[in-house]
Amino acid sequence: MFEDAAAGADDTQVAIMRATFRALQKHGYAGLSIQRIADETDLSKSTFYHHYEGKDDLLLSFLEFVLGQFTEDLARLDTGDPRRDLALFFDAVLFDTHPLEAAGEDIDYDCPGERTIPDEAERSEMKATVMELRSHAIRDARYREQFLDADDRVRDRLATIIERGVDQGVFDDVDATRTADLLLTLAYGALLRPSTSAPDGDPPEVVREEIASYVDDHLLRTS
Amino acid sequence: MFEDAAAGADDTQVAIMRATFRALQKHGYAGLSIQRIADETDLSKSTFYHHYEGKDDLLLSFLEFVLGQFTEDLARLDTGDPRRDLALFFDAVLFDTHPLEAAGEDIDYDCPGERTIPDEAERSEMKATVMELRSHAIRDARYREQFLDADDRVRDRLATIIERGVDQGVFDDVDATRTADLLLTLAYGALLRPSTSAPDGDPPEVVREEIASYVDDHLLRTS
Repeated sequence: MFEDAAAGADDTQVAIMRATFRALQKHGYAGLSIQRIADETDLSKSTFYHHYEGKDDLLLSFLEFVLGQFTEDLARLDTGDPRRDLALFFDAVLFDTHPLEAAGEDIDYDCPGERTIPDEAERSEMKATVMELRSHAIRDARYREQFLDADDRVRDRLATIIERGVDQGVFDDVDATRTADLLLTLAYGALLRPSTSAPDGDPPEVVREEIASYVDDHLLRTS
Repeated sequence: MFEDAAAGADDTQVAIMRATFRALQKHGYAGLSIQRIADETDLSKSTFYHHYEGKDDLLLSFLEFVLGQFTEDLARLDTGDPRRDLALFFDAVLFDTHPLEAAGEDIDYDCPGERTIPDEAERSEMKATVMELRSHAIRDARYREQFLDADDRVRDRLATIIERGVDQGVFDDVDATRTADLLLTLAYGALLRPSTSAPDGDPPEVVREEIASYVDDHLLRTS
């Protein structure tokens, strides 16, 4: 999942990101330590302290990396059809597909280096990990800041899709930012509802229906 | 916050619930142990093992207690005015007020024993704790089951409020369960968006506006 970073970044840092992800899966935020992350690699603890001041410094880098990659991938979901972009966008935000996979048929990527598309199990683990860090963000302003920035970018991306649909006459002339805020809040709510967030659970049908019916009723132009 | 339970339940169990809450605040789910919960009380570790098989058994009891209390309190928000009940409901679900406090002016309680209304700091801690256990529920079916049950009760309560509004002619003749699902998903989304979920942050204005405008546009009868 982190291979792409190898193109631009230091191999050691990619190994550290990957180890951080594995250690988070095993121990959770509160149980994490530099030692436990180092245990997931062949690197020594001192190598970690050479790059990062401590657990939170490393985790904030990890979060920045993951959220940065996610928002960059979302920006690439651009099929030219706002309705399809909207569907792909929600698939990605709900961790149902990976943006690269979803857009695979429609978009040519000009990726630096090789990139592996995460499978369903990896997406589930990433969802659980991101949700845990989100819940930690309630208590820690540094994490909150990162999610706030990422959520603004995600919301702006959604607003751009909606604006294009309005310009093309596919969507009604809605307030794009406000509609994006509402739809994104619905999607985040879907992530939090347990019926929809089990890694092995059904697809979040109820919320998908809600989002679809909102789009049908309030966004799609009836002509 | 847990005093009320003293009326019906065993003092030791109330002390254990309170200690579990404090230990969760300090150590988070992954860092929690029976020893660390016992450290928050005058009780011995063996007393804990007399009542509970282990950390998860205890935490599941804690979650059942907290969610049970919350849904019972929500059921008491019944002022006779569905519009006011709706507003109080969202205040409570977003942890902006405690149901008992919100309803204080309007409702007579027939509470067994004394009950202390949690202050803002306690509500914030409870929000962070519940959110952490929700994120843990993604990985653990036993926690998921509890949230699923509680969310169904919360959704049904909201649907009842909406149905009464429809019956009184205050709300449009909407599908109450579906509307409740949508509004509840929005509220959960609001809890997850970092701008709105900082314990010391502003009230979740954006999402409040969204919910209010949804209620205005799709629920309130224009006559």
